[in-house]
Amino acid sequence: MIIAFLGTGLMGQPMASNLLKAGFSVNVYNRSLHKTSALAQLGASIFPNPAAALKNAGIIITMLDSAQTQERVLFNQATLSQCLPGSLIIDMASIAPDNARQHARLAGEHQLRYIDAPVSGGTRGAQEGTLVIMAGASKSDLLNAKAIFAVLGSKTIHIGPVGTGQIAKCANQAIVAVTIGAVSEALLLAAKGGADVKAVREALMGGFASSKVLDQHGQRMIERNFTPGGTAKVQLKDLNNICAFASTHNLQLPLTELVQSQYQQLVSGGSQDLDHSALLLWLESLNHTTITL
Amino acid sequence: MIIAFLGTGLMGQPMASNLLKAGFSVNVYNRSLHKTSALAQLGASIFPNPAAALKNAGIIITMLDSAQTQERVLFNQATLSQCLPGSLIIDMASIAPDNARQHARLAGEHQLRYIDAPVSGGTRGAQEGTLVIMAGASKSDLLNAKAIFAVLGSKTIHIGPVGTGQIAKCANQAIVAVTIGAVSEALLLAAKGGADVKAVREALMGGFASSKVLDQHGQRMIERNFTPGGTAKVQLKDLNNICAFASTHNLQLPLTELVQSQYQQLVSGGSQDLDHSALLLWLESLNHTTITL
Repeated sequence: MIIAFLGTGLMGQPMASNLLKAGFSVNVYNRSLHKTSALAQLGASIFPNPAAALKNAGIIITMLDSAQTQERVLFNQATLSQCLPGSLIIDMASIAPDNARQHARLAGEHQLRYIDAPVSGGTRGAQEGTLVIMAGASKSDLLNAKAIFAVLGSKTIHIGPVGTGQIAKCANQAIVAVTIGAVSEALLLAAKGGADVKAVREALMGGFASSKVLDQHGQRMIERNFTPGGTAKVQLKDLNNICAFASTHNLQLPLTELVQSQYQQLVSGGSQDLDHSALLLWLESLNHTTITL
Repeated sequence: MIIAFLGTGLMGQPMASNLLKAGFSVNVYNRSLHKTSALAQLGASIFPNPAAALKNAGIIITMLDSAQTQERVLFNQATLSQCLPGSLIIDMASIAPDNARQHARLAGEHQLRYIDAPVSGGTRGAQEGTLVIMAGASKSDLLNAKAIFAVLGSKTIHIGPVGTGQIAKCANQAIVAVTIGAVSEALLLAAKGGADVKAVREALMGGFASSKVLDQHGQRMIERNFTPGGTAKVQLKDLNNICAFASTHNLQLPLTELVQSQYQQLVSGGSQDLDHSALLLWLESLNHTTITL
């Protein structure tokens, strides 16, 4: 069984690498050819276009940066008609749930199967094979992907039918963004009140306020280290997807909508490539003060 | 050294009990006398009014329900003038930082020392002696309280000068409230998108969205178990303290202010005595849908 891996960027590269090390045969396509040489050394077959890479593949994994790129690379009539009938497409990038459902329909029209399986855990999880995989799939398709997911992640959760993997990822990103906002406000409040913000973070890690965001992003805020990690622009893209879904489905999510507008302002102000914990900078600017008084 | 313990309710009772078990001499005053009989059996001396309880005490611990009650019970000229000069008042309830500073000034006028030392960990932490204690104090006063804090809590953090213990507690409560709001929105989004909300919670506990709130309050939301725990009305009281502090000090905290208005609506709607995770009910009502579709 050959796997076609489309998109070997920051996440895709280590994921494809782990599949090669686990003994899978991997065909690779990436827009920037020079990013594929490390994979070639591990035994990957490199192809100059997606159609060539997927021609003999029973599994097609996509890890591309947006729904639009995916549509250019794979989800168009010309490319889908090149796939082996019956093959399984596993889309592991984070895209809007409605796009995932649309891609699943397109795949179905070409007798192809489809799983949406976005991940959390970042580049480190990708490297260490410890991603959490949120799968929207039929039970039988998920069974076919099991051996692959076992290599890529430490945990695969079946969220529900196709599209719900992306829903779970949206839920994840909504919580992350709002929690970053909450930690920013709490640390600024602490500083303004004359407290030692390091001591506050340490105290709060012991109680109900504790979270991975307070631990990791809180530490970044205190160190003022906004080297990404996850960027503000990707956080905004995810929030835009969430708010678009909510709007289409008549759902009001007041905190998520508020933090979307905050990230919009952060990104408009030129901080798009900073870590998403840089939302603190937006809040500091709003208040003309900083947490290091 | 005798400790006067003023206020032996849900939190104070197990805390005083732990002090007695650790061998301290404890004088107890509580408004409802019948709530003190278990402590009497452990060897506490029970007094019918605060002045009698604190007359021979070197340490005075208060765990009363509001700043107003504290002012009636202890922080008034008549009662403070009954205290042994040089004694140390340790105020462990959650009150507004500006009230704590005012109480410290009043204490100082009577040659009394003052620490604000609110806690997190709830009734369970109080029972098990595993509270996290956030202390606003001078170094020497904190040193005098060390043996007592070692009995009551598993961790004491020196946040800064008097008043900053309450600031840390405010930071804690702001994060808890906003995170409860974030988890509510994420679970409702998940349900509306056709996902299995239990699977979503499980998946998200593995990544950056993980928090004690997602773990414990998220579980309550899924089980629809809103028996408190911490009540919505206490959460609102804390948010009111935070927003009043922010307003006095010209600080904008948009997410905290938004969640305050949500809790205000929840409490106005009659849910004041439910667990604070019942914020989900407010969001469901706003959207005319529930997470159990």
